[in-house]
Amino acid sequence: MFDLHMTPEEFRRAGYAAVDWVARYMGEIERYPVLSQVEPGEIRSHLPASPPEKGEPFEAVLRDLDEIIMPGITHWQSPNFFAYFSGNASGPSMLGDLVSSGLGVQGMMWATSPACTELETHVLDWLVDMLALPERFKSTTQGGGVIQDTGSSSSLCALLAARERATGFETNRRGIDRQLVAYASSHAHSSMEKNARIAGIGRDNLRLIDADESYAMRPEVLARTIEEDLAADRTPFFVTATVGTTSSHAIDPVRAIGKICRQHGLWLHVDAAHIGTAALCPEFRWIHEGLELADSYVFNPHKWMLTNLDCSAFYVTDREALIRTLTIVPEYLRTAASESGRVFDYRDWHIPLGRRFRSLKLWFVIRHYGVEGLQRYIREHVKLAQEFRSWVEEDDHFELAAPAPLSLVCFRLKGEDDLNQRLMDSLNDSGELYITHTKLDGRLVLRLAVDAPFTQRRHVERAWSLIQEPAEAVGRD
Amino acid sequence: MFDLHMTPEEFRRAGYAAVDWVARYMGEIERYPVLSQVEPGEIRSHLPASPPEKGEPFEAVLRDLDEIIMPGITHWQSPNFFAYFSGNASGPSMLGDLVSSGLGVQGMMWATSPACTELETHVLDWLVDMLALPERFKSTTQGGGVIQDTGSSSSLCALLAARERATGFETNRRGIDRQLVAYASSHAHSSMEKNARIAGIGRDNLRLIDADESYAMRPEVLARTIEEDLAADRTPFFVTATVGTTSSHAIDPVRAIGKICRQHGLWLHVDAAHIGTAALCPEFRWIHEGLELADSYVFNPHKWMLTNLDCSAFYVTDREALIRTLTIVPEYLRTAASESGRVFDYRDWHIPLGRRFRSLKLWFVIRHYGVEGLQRYIREHVKLAQEFRSWVEEDDHFELAAPAPLSLVCFRLKGEDDLNQRLMDSLNDSGELYITHTKLDGRLVLRLAVDAPFTQRRHVERAWSLIQEPAEAVGRD
Repeated sequence: MFDLHMTPEEFRRAGYAAVDWVARYMGEIERYPVLSQVEPGEIRSHLPASPPEKGEPFEAVLRDLDEIIMPGITHWQSPNFFAYFSGNASGPSMLGDLVSSGLGVQGMMWATSPACTELETHVLDWLVDMLALPERFKSTTQGGGVIQDTGSSSSLCALLAARERATGFETNRRGIDRQLVAYASSHAHSSMEKNARIAGIGRDNLRLIDADESYAMRPEVLARTIEEDLAADRTPFFVTATVGTTSSHAIDPVRAIGKICRQHGLWLHVDAAHIGTAALCPEFRWIHEGLELADSYVFNPHKWMLTNLDCSAFYVTDREALIRTLTIVPEYLRTAASESGRVFDYRDWHIPLGRRFRSLKLWFVIRHYGVEGLQRYIREHVKLAQEFRSWVEEDDHFELAAPAPLSLVCFRLKGEDDLNQRLMDSLNDSGELYITHTKLDGRLVLRLAVDAPFTQRRHVERAWSLIQEPAEAVGRD
Repeated sequence: MFDLHMTPEEFRRAGYAAVDWVARYMGEIERYPVLSQVEPGEIRSHLPASPPEKGEPFEAVLRDLDEIIMPGITHWQSPNFFAYFSGNASGPSMLGDLVSSGLGVQGMMWATSPACTELETHVLDWLVDMLALPERFKSTTQGGGVIQDTGSSSSLCALLAARERATGFETNRRGIDRQLVAYASSHAHSSMEKNARIAGIGRDNLRLIDADESYAMRPEVLARTIEEDLAADRTPFFVTATVGTTSSHAIDPVRAIGKICRQHGLWLHVDAAHIGTAALCPEFRWIHEGLELADSYVFNPHKWMLTNLDCSAFYVTDREALIRTLTIVPEYLRTAASESGRVFDYRDWHIPLGRRFRSLKLWFVIRHYGVEGLQRYIREHVKLAQEFRSWVEEDDHFELAAPAPLSLVCFRLKGEDDLNQRLMDSLNDSGELYITHTKLDGRLVLRLAVDAPFTQRRHVERAWSLIQEPAEAVGRD
């Protein structure tokens, strides 16, 4: 049957073709409309109803990739992608991931590939130094880091470990038997509610705490709400502070929140999924003020550190709580190394059992760019976003809609929501750039995030001129 | 700052080098000891304490990959890897994944790359036909499929949807407020317990039902246990039937279990993570007998269908139950397409929000091999495993320890567990092959799984002769 597989030589030829394809894509990316222009069902309608009975040449697949798939791509790596949060790919990251695919190891336990575990632990310790995170997150203390797929999953693991610690690890055994209550700001990521549901807590037991005029959590409201829950015999156990909300990059006051958590013995989780990477630069490390009070922390290198999906870096100060929450050891997974207690088995640090060798791409990225290169990358994005912010502030048609501390600017055309919606739709329909929206104080707000890998000054300048022109036209309608 | 990035030309050069590296690895894989021989901490000790300040050339990274990382690799793609379950990589899969990394799209919603959603839906519908699964799993009915990272996560989503359907979607809102009870065989995958804990059910409320002499669930015990729970005012809601247990490939009687589920209105989940792929071949489709009674189903192309991690195919017959369980729509994720109801937003089909374009690799695999090629692949593995089984049966020193219907043979040296442990350790320490163990009926049993991509007859023959030789020596000790 071995005529079925690519031989190493055939793999080499097909691999070169795939690399050429990606290189060409990187070079031509600005030619595509940023937001895919297809209608629902259009891509499927070009795919054959049945799979091929016989194998086909690689060239045929690449041809269909161009002809069928590409029209349905929204170009997250385009320098004109200013939507949501960025997905950061880069050459070294892609190639680290290719090597990971080639090795095909499954790193569920130390023994199933020691390098997969040890490189991950090591690189995550590097990141503690690189971002000047508290030492307590290092594997050399009682803490440690692990790569998860996304911030959502990382935050779920934090919630679960907190749930177990608060109930003496009895919920794992008996199920939920009391009213557990979690807290996050009303601007926290949607996964907080999803996770409360998954964990059996219920969304009614997630208190969304009011925010101040900068859209950051009001700690005095948090304190009062906890007191009320305690008075009503509920069990507060978990608070998420967001450093960089998805809507507007608002930064919750971590230290004030942390003190409240300490006072009541609650687990403090800090979600810096999008902007944690900024702490690579000393001048932005103020975002993490108070982080020494946190029990867990997450930031996503796949969002702003040139590492393609999926790569979320999750840290805890008390790894035993996490492991005890998630460990299961059936007989067929017992190994001498695991039972020696001298190794980490990362299967016990997250939801899935199986896991890719994801630290390779992170290692490739850090080696390629070096700490200085990554710092320059972040600084340039922040500089460009701040320039954009100043242009908004100087233009009488527009107003800034939230503080813009880093790489995201929330703004709006003065006037009705409808004007802003039409402005956004016309921009996105043009294919020239892609921005998205949110609502702040009940008003529709446009978001421009400068964090795509190849975005340069000329792209942000052009975006601003494209935004200004129809804005005036829309204004005249 | 754009001197930091690889240019398309630099990417091409580095990409060719990475492809060459993988091609060389594929060609040389048999030279490595299958199970890594390093000690805990050994890999880390060769990594510098600090990350590089300045970027380094790609060649330096590849050199360290060879010198530092490779000794810590356990070679899951080796034809002499007979451990656990296989992790199946293949050339077309790796290259599909490379293109996915290159595009760098985040497919959380249809609008964020329509092709990412539509190719996934389409290929998962193809798989329904390819495996002759019930039509109710197709997206053209009320059901549909989605790619998850692992079988563990797929089964968790099934459990959650079942929990919500059983409680009128009130648990999501209020949290768990009654004693919900789930069921699986005592040989079910470890994720069943982990998931019961995650979902707030508690492991005491997961009933592990006794198995028969073939290690398959006894449906009469299931029925009795459900009756007892009902009589005690508990709320049974979820049953997992395993098609191919991890220990021994035991196959639960899905139809009998399904009838019991129908009688009581319980959600039936079928976990065929490892061996579902066998249903590509008509002669093995008996493994899915009764699947028409299932509410959800999972099999992992990354285990036996030449698609590298992570790629778990998860199906439901009632997608609304799944979506309603997991959907969250904050303002910043609202799009016209989503609100039209004409598209799938796969973020609502699993735990994470962000997601890679994983269907590309599955599509590349199906195109490269064709249905016939994949069938030949499965048949060859089963044939080799069955030959191995016959050799075991013919050798007086050994005994078969479980039925071996497909690609996994559980066997043991007649005699004490200790003999078998020493036999396994000596084999694995030799680096010549890698097998693992389980316990069945309290006895230590060796497992030989024939499902690595490049395993041929000569590898299985050699494994048998390596197993026989020290077996005799161990027997003389």
